[in-house]
Amino acid sequence: MLRGLSEEKVFKDPVHHSVFIQDPTIWKLIDTPEFQRLRRIRQLGTSYMTFHGAEHSRFSHSLGVYEITRKIISQFERNGYPDWPQEERLVSLCAALLHDVGHGPFSHSLEQVFGTHHEKWTCEILLGDTGINRVLREADPSLPERVSSVICKTYGQPIVVSLVSSQMDADRMDYLLRDSYFTGVHYGTFDLDRILRVLRPYKGKIVVKETGMHAVEAYLMSRYQMYWQVYFHPVTRSSEIVLRSIFKRARILYRSDYRFEFLLPPLRRLFDGELTVGDYLELDEAMVQTSFGRWTGEKDPILSDLCKRFLNRQLYKYIPMEHRDETTLSEFRRQWREIGLDPDYYLEVDTPTDLPYDVYDTDSDQGGPEKPPILLLDDKERLTEISEKSEIIRSIAKVQRGKYHIYYPEELVQEHADRLSPDIRKLLYL
Amino acid sequence: MLRGLSEEKVFKDPVHHSVFIQDPTIWKLIDTPEFQRLRRIRQLGTSYMTFHGAEHSRFSHSLGVYEITRKIISQFERNGYPDWPQEERLVSLCAALLHDVGHGPFSHSLEQVFGTHHEKWTCEILLGDTGINRVLREADPSLPERVSSVICKTYGQPIVVSLVSSQMDADRMDYLLRDSYFTGVHYGTFDLDRILRVLRPYKGKIVVKETGMHAVEAYLMSRYQMYWQVYFHPVTRSSEIVLRSIFKRARILYRSDYRFEFLLPPLRRLFDGELTVGDYLELDEAMVQTSFGRWTGEKDPILSDLCKRFLNRQLYKYIPMEHRDETTLSEFRRQWREIGLDPDYYLEVDTPTDLPYDVYDTDSDQGGPEKPPILLLDDKERLTEISEKSEIIRSIAKVQRGKYHIYYPEELVQEHADRLSPDIRKLLYL
Amino acid sequence: MLRGLSEEKVFKDPVHHSVFIQDPTIWKLIDTPEFQRLRRIRQLGTSYMTFHGAEHSRFSHSLGVYEITRKIISQFERNGYPDWPQEERLVSLCAALLHDVGHGPFSHSLEQVFGTHHEKWTCEILLGDTGINRVLREADPSLPERVSSVICKTYGQPIVVSLVSSQMDADRMDYLLRDSYFTGVHYGTFDLDRILRVLRPYKGKIVVKETGMHAVEAYLMSRYQMYWQVYFHPVTRSSEIVLRSIFKRARILYRSDYRFEFLLPPLRRLFDGELTVGDYLELDEAMVQTSFGRWTGEKDPILSDLCKRFLNRQLYKYIPMEHRDETTLSEFRRQWREIGLDPDYYLEVDTPTDLPYDVYDTDSDQGGPEKPPILLLDDKERLTEISEKSEIIRSIAKVQRGKYHIYYPEELVQEHADRLSPDIRKLLYL
Amino acid sequence: MLRGLSEEKVFKDPVHHSVFIQDPTIWKLIDTPEFQRLRRIRQLGTSYMTFHGAEHSRFSHSLGVYEITRKIISQFERNGYPDWPQEERLVSLCAALLHDVGHGPFSHSLEQVFGTHHEKWTCEILLGDTGINRVLREADPSLPERVSSVICKTYGQPIVVSLVSSQMDADRMDYLLRDSYFTGVHYGTFDLDRILRVLRPYKGKIVVKETGMHAVEAYLMSRYQMYWQVYFHPVTRSSEIVLRSIFKRARILYRSDYRFEFLLPPLRRLFDGELTVGDYLELDEAMVQTSFGRWTGEKDPILSDLCKRFLNRQLYKYIPMEHRDETTLSEFRRQWREIGLDPDYYLEVDTPTDLPYDVYDTDSDQGGPEKPPILLLDDKERLTEISEKSEIIRSIAKVQRGKYHIYYPEELVQEHADRLSPDIRKLLYL
Repeated sequence: MLRGLSEEKVFKDPVHHSVFIQDPTIWKLIDTPEFQRLRRIRQLGTSYMTFHGAEHSRFSHSLGVYEITRKIISQFERNGYPDWPQEERLVSLCAALLHDVGHGPFSHSLEQVFGTHHEKWTCEILLGDTGINRVLREADPSLPERVSSVICKTYGQPIVVSLVSSQMDADRMDYLLRDSYFTGVHYGTFDLDRILRVLRPYKGKIVVKETGMHAVEAYLMSRYQMYWQVYFHPVTRSSEIVLRSIFKRARILYRSDYRFEFLLPPLRRLFDGELTVGDYLELDEAMVQTSFGRWTGEKDPILSDLCKRFLNRQLYKYIPMEHRDETTLSEFRRQWREIGLDPDYYLEVDTPTDLPYDVYDTDSDQGGPEKPPILLLDDKERLTEISEKSEIIRSIAKVQRGKYHIYYPEELVQEHADRLSPDIRKLLYL
Repeated sequence: MLRGLSEEKVFKDPVHHSVFIQDPTIWKLIDTPEFQRLRRIRQLGTSYMTFHGAEHSRFSHSLGVYEITRKIISQFERNGYPDWPQEERLVSLCAALLHDVGHGPFSHSLEQVFGTHHEKWTCEILLGDTGINRVLREADPSLPERVSSVICKTYGQPIVVSLVSSQMDADRMDYLLRDSYFTGVHYGTFDLDRILRVLRPYKGKIVVKETGMHAVEAYLMSRYQMYWQVYFHPVTRSSEIVLRSIFKRARILYRSDYRFEFLLPPLRRLFDGELTVGDYLELDEAMVQTSFGRWTGEKDPILSDLCKRFLNRQLYKYIPMEHRDETTLSEFRRQWREIGLDPDYYLEVDTPTDLPYDVYDTDSDQGGPEKPPILLLDDKERLTEISEKSEIIRSIAKVQRGKYHIYYPEELVQEHADRLSPDIRKLLYL
Repeated sequence: MLRGLSEEKVFKDPVHHSVFIQDPTIWKLIDTPEFQRLRRIRQLGTSYMTFHGAEHSRFSHSLGVYEITRKIISQFERNGYPDWPQEERLVSLCAALLHDVGHGPFSHSLEQVFGTHHEKWTCEILLGDTGINRVLREADPSLPERVSSVICKTYGQPIVVSLVSSQMDADRMDYLLRDSYFTGVHYGTFDLDRILRVLRPYKGKIVVKETGMHAVEAYLMSRYQMYWQVYFHPVTRSSEIVLRSIFKRARILYRSDYRFEFLLPPLRRLFDGELTVGDYLELDEAMVQTSFGRWTGEKDPILSDLCKRFLNRQLYKYIPMEHRDETTLSEFRRQWREIGLDPDYYLEVDTPTDLPYDVYDTDSDQGGPEKPPILLLDDKERLTEISEKSEIIRSIAKVQRGKYHIYYPEELVQEHADRLSPDIRKLLYL
Repeated sequence: MLRGLSEEKVFKDPVHHSVFIQDPTIWKLIDTPEFQRLRRIRQLGTSYMTFHGAEHSRFSHSLGVYEITRKIISQFERNGYPDWPQEERLVSLCAALLHDVGHGPFSHSLEQVFGTHHEKWTCEILLGDTGINRVLREADPSLPERVSSVICKTYGQPIVVSLVSSQMDADRMDYLLRDSYFTGVHYGTFDLDRILRVLRPYKGKIVVKETGMHAVEAYLMSRYQMYWQVYFHPVTRSSEIVLRSIFKRARILYRSDYRFEFLLPPLRRLFDGELTVGDYLELDEAMVQTSFGRWTGEKDPILSDLCKRFLNRQLYKYIPMEHRDETTLSEFRRQWREIGLDPDYYLEVDTPTDLPYDVYDTDSDQGGPEKPPILLLDDKERLTEISEKSEIIRSIAKVQRGKYHIYYPEELVQEHADRLSPDIRKLLYL
C-alpha cells in the first residue's frame, strides 16, 4: 500500500521466507498490471493435474528470481569484489524480476502450436506502451532497452547476462526450490545459501569457487531428479497433449469457417496470427479455461470431447514403446481412423528428443544462444569447466534422454478393441 | 489412470506427504467433474493478493481433509475401540472428501452479496443428477442421502458428524496446516500426529485424552494466530471489499437494464436468482476473472474501474478507527458523494462483529447448528469441556474481536483532498 | 583452521543454517579451551532421557545466541538507527557468545545441591587467568570487565544489557528454536525473521514495533508450550531428582569420612566447597558420568543404586497429587523408613513454586535483577508494555503454575506394598 | 515408565517424528543397561568437531533403524505379500534395534588402533550374561542366537539379513537422514516414504519395484553427497588422527612401564588386550574424555599435548598432495625428527584407499560378507541389478576415491620452519 520506499518492503514467501524490496522502481514494477497478470499464469502449466500442489503462479517465481539475484548482488557488494560492476545493480534486478513477464497461459503448449515465443513477448512488453515500460523509463530512459537486451542476452556487460541466464542462474535455482516445495516432492532441494556464498564475479562471468564443487553437484543432481520425476512426468505430458489437441482442433475449425458459439477476441486474433501486445496481455489461464468450459458445449464433437477431458482431467493413457517405429505408427493411425478416432487429436508419440533436456549441457545444440557453462575458480585463479573435474556431472550430462511413450484415450479405444489388429492389441495390453 | 484398486493409490501432497486411497469409491469420486472443478476454486479466495503463495485450491484441501479423517478412523480401527461404529467408515470418508464440493468462486464474498450458501449447494450436488451422485449410489443407494446428512449435521450417528464437523475436526486441522504451508507463515503448525494419537471415540463423540490437552492448546493457539495474521489480514479484507463492490455494481446494472457487452449465462442466472446446479457447477474462478477482464472494457465507469482494481491489485487503503460512529460515517458518505465517489462502492467499514470469529467458541450464537466443543476424557472416564481446564483456551476464546477499519480508494480521494472537511482529512491522515 | 579473518568464517548450524564470524576476536574466543569445553555440557541437562534427540551442547546454543545478536545488530546498523550505539557492537557480540560459559555439568541440579551460580562462574572465567580473558584483553584491555558487566546486568549502556538479557532476548530466542529442533517437538517454532525485523533500539531499550505484536504473541505461546511440554516434563524432573539424590548422598558420605574408591580432585573440592576456576573448568558431564559409572561399584548401597538408576535410566515413577499436604508427606516419609527406604533420597515432591516459571513475567519476584518486559512502540512513539495490549499474553503470564507430583522408585516400593497403609496404597494406585 | 504394553508406546523422534513400540520385548530391550549405554556413544564419533550439531548418539540412531524396519515390515504385512515370512517379524525388529549395540567409544578410531570389531562385541553382548540376553531369552530361548546370526549375516532366512544389511538397508536409510538432520547439511534427504512404498519381498530378497528407480537414484546421490561433504570431511579426519595418536601413545607408554597417574581398569585391560564384555560395556565416550582430561596432566609431554589438542580442538592442519610418494614421506619424517617432532604421532598421510567408500559397490573387495546389491523388479517379474539400468548410479559407483592429504600440527612445525628444507617448506606453503 505504500508509495515511497522510506523503509524496505517485505513479501512473505514460502520458499525464501522473505523477499526484500529496497528500490522504488522494483516496487512500482510489481504494481503494474502486466506484472500482476502473472498471478493468472501457473508456473508449471498443467503439472497441477499430476501434483495437485503445483498451483503456484509465475508471479511468485518471478519474485523468487528477483530475491536470489538480490542476494547474489548483495554478497558481491558486501565483499567489494572489483569484477562486479556496481552500476549494473538495478538493471540486473529488473531483468531478474521481469524475465518471465512475456509468458502466456500454458506457455510451452501454446508456443508449440502457435509458434509464439515468450522471450519475444517479454521484449515487446518491456519496449511497448505498457506500465512496465513507463516505470522503467521513469527511473532511467535507457532502462527498457537495457533490461530487454539482458533478457535477449545481447547486453554489453556479459556478467549481467550470466547472472540472469546461465547453467546455474537465479531462474533455475528458484524454480527448482519452488517447484519442489509446491509439488511436495523432496527432490529439488539443495543448499542455496552455500551456493550463493561460493559465487564470484570474475572477468565478466559469474564463476564458482572450487571448494563449492560438491554444492554444485548437489544442485545438478536435484535438477536431474526434478526433470525425471516432475517436469517430464507422463501424466503431465498427457495433459499437455490434450491441451495441444484442443488448440489444434480449434484453429482448424476456425480456419474452416466453423462458427464458434463463444470465441473471445484475443483467441480469435491468436488464430488469425495477429496478436497485439494488448491482446496478448489479456490472454491468461482464466480465459483459456473459461473458453474450454464454453467449448464443452460446442457442436464439434472432437472439440467438445477434448475440452471435457481437459477440465475433468480425463487424460490419455500412456504406454511405453521400445523405440519409435514409423511403420507401426502408420498402422496405429490407420486403425485409429478405422475405429472412428482422428489420430491427429487422439494419438501422440512422445519422442525423447522433444524433451527440452538440459540438466547440464555444455555443448548445446538447441538453437538460440547457449547458456554459459559452470566454471570453477581455483585458488591459483585458474578456471575449469566443472564437468572436467566432476565425474558425476559428466555422467549426468550424458544420461540418455527418456523413453518413447504412446498416448491415447483408453476407454474410446477399448470400446473397439475387437476391431484392432492383434499386434496393436498386444502393444496396448488389450 | 487406474480403474480398479488392486493396490492403494497415492497422491503426493506437500502437507501430508502422501494421501492414500484405498476404496474404489473414493477414487471414483475424485475422478468426477464436480470434484475436479474444485481445482478451479482457490482455498483462500483473494488471500493470494496478500500472500502470493496462497494459490492452492479447494481440491488439495479436500484431499487433505479426507486423509486426516482416514488416519483418525484407521487409528480407531487399529485399536479396536468399541465406541467407533466400524460400518461408518465409508460414509465418513465420503463426507470428509466432499464437504466443500459446493463451494463456488470466492465463496464468502459471493455468499454475502447473493445470499447463497455453499452447504446447500453441496447437498444439491450430492443429491442431484451429478457424477458424484452416481458414484455414491453405485456403492450403496443410501449413500448420497447419508453423506449429505452428515454434512448437514443431521445424521443419525452423531460421532460421524463430530468427526467431520466440530471445534477440532479434520477440516480445520487440514486448513490450518495447509494455509500455513502455502502462505509461508509459521503460525499454523501444530503437532497433528500427536493430536491424532489422543483422539478417542467415546459415547457418540470424538473426545481427547486429557494427556493431550497441551497439544490441543497448541492447535488453538495456531488457529488464533492464523485468524489474526492471515484470515483477517486487512489487505485480504480490502480485496474482498473490491470484489463485493463489483458484484453489487454488476447486479444493479443488470437489474437496471444495463446492456453488458459480455455476460455469460451462469452469471446472468446468478443475477436473476435462478441458478441451477448445472449453472453453479460452471461457475468457477476462471469464469469470474475472465468476466472481470472483459468488464474492464464496459462503458459503466464504476464497474470498469472496480474490475481493473481487482485484476491489477489496486486495492483500497485502510485506516483504523477507534469505534464505529454512525454520524462520522454519514459525514464520510456525504463528502464522498460531493467529490463524486459513490460510497456504496468506494467506502466500507469493517466492523469486528462481521468477522466469522470462532477460534474457540463454546457458546456459539452464529446461527446454524453449533460446532460441538472439545471434550477432555480423564483416566476416570470423566468428560470436561476443555476451557474449564485450560486457562489459555479460556482466554483465547474471549479475546476481543478485532478493530474497525475504514476502506477507500486512496488516490481517488487524495485528488480531492482539498474539498474534504478538516475533520475527515485528519482521520485520513491527509 | 584459519588464524586471520581475511574473509568471513561460517559454521554450519542446523537451526540458523549458517553462523557467520566476521571479527577475529570472536573467532579466537571460540577457539579457547574454556569455550570448547561447552561441547561437553549438554544444553538441556538430563532432558535427553525424555527426548532422545536433546543431546545438543551449550556450545551450539552459544553460537546460536551470538548469531541472533549479530543479526539484530546488523539490522540496526543497516538502517542506521540513531539510538543504537555502534561502538557497542563487539562488547555485545562477546557477551552473547560468552553468556553461558560458566555453566557446569547438569547446572541446574548441581546449583541446587551445592549453591553455586553459573553467572558467578562466568564472570570469574572472564576476569580470571583464562584463555578467554587473554583474547578479550588483547582486543581491548577494558573488554573483560565490560563484557562481564553486561552479563551481570550492571553495564552502563542498558541497551546492551537489554539485547542480551530481557523477556525476548537472543538467549531465549535461540534456545526455544534449538530445543524444539533437537527434541523434535513442534512447539518452539515462531517467526524469528519477522521478530528480528520489528525490533528497534529506542532510548536505551530494545523495543518492538507495534505491528509486530502478533509475532511476539506467537513467540510467547511457543515459550509457554515449551515450558509445559519439554522443560517441565515429569520424566525430566524425575531424572533430575535422581541426579540430585546422587550428589546429596555423595556429599554426605564424603563429609562422614566414607572412603570413596574413586573420587577425582575437582569433585573432592566441590564437596569441600573449595572449587577454584581451574577445578570448575575441569568439571564436565563426561567427568560426572564417569564418576557415576565408577560409583556403581561403591560399597554404599544407596549411592551405588542411585548411580545405576541414573546411567541405566531406571528413574522414579511419578503420580500427581491434588495439593501439597505436609501431614500426608510426613506419613509417606515414616512409612518409607519402615520399609527400609531413606526418604531423603527415595522420595520427593515437586512443588509448582519450585518451577523457574517465567513464560512472561512483568513483575518478577524471583530475586536477582528483573528481566525487562517487552515494550511496544506505536507510530506516535508511545511505549506500552505488551500485556496491556494483548489479552493472550496477559493470560499466559497468569496461568497457574503446574501440579504437585510425588516421585519414588516404583519397584522398591511395590515389593513392600503390603506393609504400607491403605491410604498410602490408594494414593499410589497400589 | 510402563511395564506392560496395553497400548503402543511412542518416542518423539526429530527424524521420524514418532517411533512406535508395539512389542513388549522391544520395550524391555530399550530398557536394558546395555542399550541405554548407547546414549553415551556418539553416532558420528568426532564429527561434532566439524559440525557442531552432530552430537547425536547411537541410541537415537538405533531407534531410527528399528522404526524404519518396523515400517517396512508393516507395509509387507498390510499388503500380505506371500514372500515375506511373517514369523520373522520379531527377530527382524530385534536385529534392527540391536545391530549397533557393540559399538564402543569413537569406534572406528579405536578399532583401527586396537583391532577390535564392533560386530564381534555385538554378538558377545547378545549371547553373553547381559540384560539384553535375558530379555531375548525370556521372549524365546532361541532368540539370542537367531538375532545374532542375522547381524552376522549367517541367518537361514536371507530376506531377514537383506532387510537389516544391504546396499539400501534400514541402517543406511536412517543414518543418512539423521546425520543430515543433526549436522544441518541439506544433502542427506531423500524420499523415505516413497522408497518404503516400492520395496517388495521377493524370493528371499528385498527388491525394488522398477518404478521406484529414480527414488533409489536420489537415495544414492544423497549417500554420495554425505560421504564427500560429511563423513570424509578433512577436519573430522584430522580429529581422528589426533585421537588415534593418543591411543597409540598411551599404549606404547603402558607397554614400556610408564606409570600413569590415572588409568581406569577398562582402559588398562584394553591395553593388555584382555577386555571382557563387562569391561567393554563400561567403556564409553565419557570415560575416554575423562581420561584424556586427566592425561593432560601426565608428565609424558606427547601424551599431554595430544590430549589437550583433542579436548581443546587444536587439531592438525591438512594440505593436499598430488599423490603418495614414499621418498618425500621419508624425508618428511626425517626432518620432523630433526626439529624434535615424533612423526609417529605428529605426521599422517591420508591415503584414499583407507576410505571405507561404498556409496554403491556391487563388487566389494573390502573383506567380510558383501552387502547385497539393489535389484529392480519389473512388471514381468524380472530382476536387474540397478546400475545396469541407471547410468547415474553406474557413474556414482565408479567415482574416484578421494585425495591424499598430509596432516600435521601447524604451529609446532612453523616454529622451526627455518630448519626445514626448501622443498618441504614449499609443500607446506611456508
